[in-house]
Parts: sequence; C-alpha cells; structure tokens
Amino acid sequence: MRKLDTSRLVIATHNAGKLKEIGALLAPYGITCLSAGALGLPEPAETGTTFVENALIKAHAAARAAQMPALADDSGMSVAALGGRPGVYTADWAERQWFEGEPGRDWYMAMGKVEGMLCQLGPEVDRSCWFSCVLAIAWPDGDSVTYEGRVDGTYRWPPRGTMGFGYDPVFVPKGRDVTFAELAPEEKHRISHRADAFAKLVKDQFTA
Amino acid sequence: MRKLDTSRLVIATHNAGKLKEIGALLAPYGITCLSAGALGLPEPAETGTTFVENALIKAHAAARAAQMPALADDSGMSVAALGGRPGVYTADWAERQWFEGEPGRDWYMAMGKVEGMLCQLGPEVDRSCWFSCVLAIAWPDGDSVTYEGRVDGTYRWPPRGTMGFGYDPVFVPKGRDVTFAELAPEEKHRISHRADAFAKLVKDQFTA
Repeated sequence: MRKLDTSRLVIATHNAGKLKEIGALLAPYGITCLSAGALGLPEPAETGTTFVENALIKAHAAARAAQMPALADDSGMSVAALGGRPGVYTADWAERQWFEGEPGRDWYMAMGKVEGMLCQLGPEVDRSCWFSCVLAIAWPDGDSVTYEGRVDGTYRWPPRGTMGFGYDPVFVPKGRDVTFAELAPEEKHRISHRADAFAKLVKDQFTA
Repeated sequence: MRKLDTSRLVIATHNAGKLKEIGALLAPYGITCLSAGALGLPEPAETGTTFVENALIKAHAAARAAQMPALADDSGMSVAALGGRPGVYTADWAERQWFEGEPGRDWYMAMGKVEGMLCQLGPEVDRSCWFSCVLAIAWPDGDSVTYEGRVDGTYRWPPRGTMGFGYDPVFVPKGRDVTFAELAPEEKHRISHRADAFAKLVKDQFTA
C-alpha cells in the first residue's frame, strides 16, 4: 500500500472534537493535522452506499481541494437482523422531521426506531450488531488507501449510560456486560471500531 | 346542539374499514352512510394543530362538496411526558423516510421513537398516555358540532399483541394489564376513545 510521504495531513472533518482526537492519535508519528474546516474546504455530499465509498468521497474531495494528502473517516451502526441498517444512514436516522421540533439530531429517537423495528421481528430476534469505521487516505493525484475497523456487540434496551455519543447507550461490546456509554472513554477508545481502524492504519503507514 | 335532519350522512374517509365500522355503529339509528371516497370527494390537507381542527377541516370539506351533512373523525396517541406528542402527528411519525425503504408507514418504528424519547427522560419517567378521538359533524351551511372521546393508559415496552392497529401494542388501558393489541376487538371497542366519542354523539344526536 502507498505510504504517506509528507508530515502534513488534512483531516476531512468540520468537527473540532474529531480533529482533536485524530490529531492526538497521529502526533506520535510526526504528523501535523490540518483541519478541512479551518482551510475553508467544502463538505461534499455523502452519496455513497458503503462506509468505504463515503470515506473515499470525503478524502478525495479534501485532497484535491488542499493539494495535499487527506484523511477522512466514515462510521456507523449496523444491526444484523435489519440487514445492516441503519449503516451508512446512521446519522440520517437521527434527523428530526419538522413536526418533531427544531432541525437537528435526536439519538434517543434513532435508537428507539431500531429497537421498534427489532421488536417487530419478535422477542427472540437476533440482537447482534456492530460499529464500523472506515479510514481513507487520499492523495491529490487520485490514489487512495482504506482501513476498516469494527467492534461487535449486542443491541440492548433500554439505553444505559451517559458517556460517549450516538448509539453508545444501547451497544454492549462482545465479552462485556455494560454499554459503550457506561465505559470510561479511555476504555471505549481501546476497543472501539475507530481504534481498530487506526491500529491498522498505523501498522501499515508507520511501521517499517 | 344542532341535530341531524337527514337520514343520509357522508363519512369523510377514504378508508373502507373505517367506513364499515362507522356504518355499523350508525345503522341502528336509521342513518345511511355514504363514503367520501366512493363519491369522489377530495381529501383535504390536515393542517390543524388539534384533533378538533383536523376533524372539522375534513367534515366541512366533505359537507360542502357533497351538499349534505358529513361526519369526520381525527384521532391519535398523546404521551404526557412528551408534551402530548405525537398527538395530531401520530400518523406522520410513522412515515418512513426514503432511506428506510419504500414509502409507507411503519408503526413499530413510530412506537420505538416514542419509547426512545421516553427513555431519554430517565427510568422513572411518567408513562401516562392516552388515545383521543374527535368526531365532527358539519352541515353544508357551515354549522358543525364535535364530540371528544378519550381513553387513558400507560405506555409499556416492549410491544405486545397482534390485534388492533397503530400504537395498540404499547397501550395498556387504565385498570387492565394487557395492551389494546392483546384485547379481543369487541372488548377494545367497548372501552376505546372512539367508543367514548360515539357514545357522546349518539346521546346527543339520537336520544330525545
């Protein structure tokens, strides 16, 4: 796989928290992260139907616009019994409609949608689910590499815990008995889908 | 209140099941029910913000178009801890968005939305809820009367039972320990919000 040949990398996110997290992960390897938001780069529409496609769309758009290598991530929750949904539509499922108040995202409503659809399949339904994270690095010449991370678990109702984000309160990782939202952030970040993808990226990009 | 002065009444619904149910309820009083759908009457947009407003919109539209008295109903589920939502938007909350598959309604998803929003308020949240039904009779001259029915209960998760419709699997009526979807139809129809509204209409319209 192609390796990074510069010490500067554009992070294709307009989310300050994500930029900080990725910056901290890559600093030990001598990489300086620049924010696509701060560079004034546009946010492309995520029109892909897979995490890989969406991560590549974002990485290529940033790399072309900035004329330097760019890193993007795309992630979401997939439920086996729902054919992998919400998947790439994880964030869309959390969008409120007009009659539900101000525009924005309601993750409890989104978690409830999935729970309702699981209940429709009966009390014995398979509650296997997983978080996916795809990291894509793209170069201005159009080249790219991707790394996929995943953490498997179970969809548990009712939601529990106050830490984390999104579907964390209903996700019980395999081998544990608490949800991602009940785990200390450092413990979650050790086993998360994003940690898995970053470990693969680091192994590939930063080891001889 | 004004009383019906004809034996023919337009039922402002395009739903064959609802027409049949209402027709059976009014037949003992010598009323012949005509279907707005069969008469080719248009379905007005339900732009009201209350059950009364929506029932009146539908009844007036049918009465004007048919030039005879018309009966409409509007109904829904209200949850106390959610400020009465979904309320008049009960059916809207069940609409699938494009990323959730074919257009149509998914009541389990809708029940899950409410459950998710209740869980966000904590494990001790008040689960009081009620079904409302408003019946409106409108005359071609613009006059109208309305009758409100209601049945109180508790929002219980997970959904149980296979009978009924809409939110019935999560609604446990006061004084019972099973959901509307677990009750035989004749038993549900004895205590339902619609039965309550019809009892008021019959008392007012068909007793001396």
